[in-house]
Amino acid sequence: MAEVESGPTLLITGGDGESERRPRPDSLHVNGGDGAYSYTRNSYFLVYISFKFFIHYLIWGVLLVRIPTNTMQHIIHFIQQKYSLQCPKSDKTLEFLVFFNEQPSNDFNTLFKSLPREIPYFAAGVPGSFHCRLFPASSIHFAHCWHAVHWLSKEPEELLDKNSSAWNKGRIHYTNASDEVVRAYAAQFAKDMDDFLCARATEIVSGGMMVISMLGIPNEMPYSQLAESVMFEFPIYTPSLEDMAETVEKNGQFSIEILELINSASLTNGRVDIKAWVVHVRAAMEGMFIQNFSSDIDDEMFDRLTKKLFMFSERVDSGYKDRNQLLVVLIRK
Amino acid sequence: MAEVESGPTLLITGGDGESERRPRPDSLHVNGGDGAYSYTRNSYFLVYISFKFFIHYLIWGVLLVRIPTNTMQHIIHFIQQKYSLQCPKSDKTLEFLVFFNEQPSNDFNTLFKSLPREIPYFAAGVPGSFHCRLFPASSIHFAHCWHAVHWLSKEPEELLDKNSSAWNKGRIHYTNASDEVVRAYAAQFAKDMDDFLCARATEIVSGGMMVISMLGIPNEMPYSQLAESVMFEFPIYTPSLEDMAETVEKNGQFSIEILELINSASLTNGRVDIKAWVVHVRAAMEGMFIQNFSSDIDDEMFDRLTKKLFMFSERVDSGYKDRNQLLVVLIRK
Repeated sequence: MAEVESGPTLLITGGDGESERRPRPDSLHVNGGDGAYSYTRNSYFLVYISFKFFIHYLIWGVLLVRIPTNTMQHIIHFIQQKYSLQCPKSDKTLEFLVFFNEQPSNDFNTLFKSLPREIPYFAAGVPGSFHCRLFPASSIHFAHCWHAVHWLSKEPEELLDKNSSAWNKGRIHYTNASDEVVRAYAAQFAKDMDDFLCARATEIVSGGMMVISMLGIPNEMPYSQLAESVMFEFPIYTPSLEDMAETVEKNGQFSIEILELINSASLTNGRVDIKAWVVHVRAAMEGMFIQNFSSDIDDEMFDRLTKKLFMFSERVDSGYKDRNQLLVVLIRK
Repeated sequence: MAEVESGPTLLITGGDGESERRPRPDSLHVNGGDGAYSYTRNSYFLVYISFKFFIHYLIWGVLLVRIPTNTMQHIIHFIQQKYSLQCPKSDKTLEFLVFFNEQPSNDFNTLFKSLPREIPYFAAGVPGSFHCRLFPASSIHFAHCWHAVHWLSKEPEELLDKNSSAWNKGRIHYTNASDEVVRAYAAQFAKDMDDFLCARATEIVSGGMMVISMLGIPNEMPYSQLAESVMFEFPIYTPSLEDMAETVEKNGQFSIEILELINSASLTNGRVDIKAWVVHVRAAMEGMFIQNFSSDIDDEMFDRLTKKLFMFSERVDSGYKDRNQLLVVLIRK
């Protein structure tokens, strides 16, 4: 029998809806189960992009995957092939342990049930906020934080204070908001990102890699369209390249391998499938909507959002062609 | 800041209800949620025993814990104290990663939600059958298989064949059954236990420890009382010391540190709390009952079981005073 040895330990964290220490944590889990609006069934949209990233960055050995979990098979297969090429005489078989991190309130049961029977890795679920420590020191070889760190741990407190100059009038986001509001979001992001980097720096082995991919927001679209449809706070911050570079350098524990904005349109067929996009948003964020409104108007709200986006479909496509996917590849010093 | 290093990686596996490859796997999960008959709320009964075991076997450094998960804190605290005594000059802080293994169909969400906010270890859930591999090679330092390996992976096939001399007439168990039936159960147990040992032997580091604690069946009680109340198959085998020693020695990958039968009465107040015991059985096995009968008669069945056990309470207590808890402590060669 060929010898077996432990291969890389991988951490896949995040997904829209993560924001552990927010005042209303229960509202923040993504839709569970496997129904029509479940997150499990509707997250392919962005996974596809991630997988394309992976192909693109193959030369760096960067992994970018998440649900659907069977996508992992391609990644593992690639690493095994690379290992065979680098060590052609070895008869060792690499084994992989993949941790899937989500908030404790998210639906791990459905995640586990959705794992194919035959997978080329061992899987574990890890409940907890990615702003905090999740693993023992130096126990992770590779981490991929997928569509997660744009979620802030909480809304900046000053935005909720009507007497503050940063009061955001109950709005969803900082788009078109005053400078004070934007600065409050940026400061909260810098604090959260530093917490995140400190936690991962302790957990990732020296020389280990972390890939952060973030859902970009096309200029004023589509989240700002959401803002025009419904009025509530949305603790998201999409950093600029400069924001991100400054935060990582200030933290000082990672070197930057790649830091760039990607045009996501080049990775798909160039047009936004509005219906699919709205279903994805619903899967990820319906819990939050219901927390802010009655569940009675839930269907109507998403119908209205879809219609509105179709009305502005040219603007949506145009925004989507902007470079709006931030890709950060870091190496633990 | 004191240096931090990874401490032992612990695997806690099992619990009643595990039997992955059984023909009706969906019926085998323990009761989820946190309601009156949930497994989470009703597993203290045996945990208490386990924790007492731990106190008893402190000198060997044996850990015996499971739900309620906060019991883990006492264990970790003990290891940390022991480490401080052995390495008084070290300023390192040990960190622990604890994996909780259950079947994919079990309720990980409730398990994760039940974890206290402040715990002195990192927690992960691992879905899968303990008869199969769950982790990369040499990645576990300590494993505790708690009330699990008495569950067979399936009923011995010959018991279901009416033309076989081992046909068990639809009965729940091998108690009072023919020699052929007992031999069929013993053979299935030997096969399953060997699969289990092979999987753990690959995963546990050389010198690592595995503790197996199994729910003993007092002579003819109480599972045989169940058998008199309801008629269906129950894929359980409770091995003798000789059965277990033979299986471990034949496998050859572990040395036996402790192998003994414990009198569980000495670890409690000496009397069986029949109501608590029935609630525990219900939490663990209601799914299976419902699979075999209508859920309409579920309440009535457990009521009748409770009454019957009260009628035989002296016999229950007497049976309980037998040595019926098998404790096996193995060291990976």
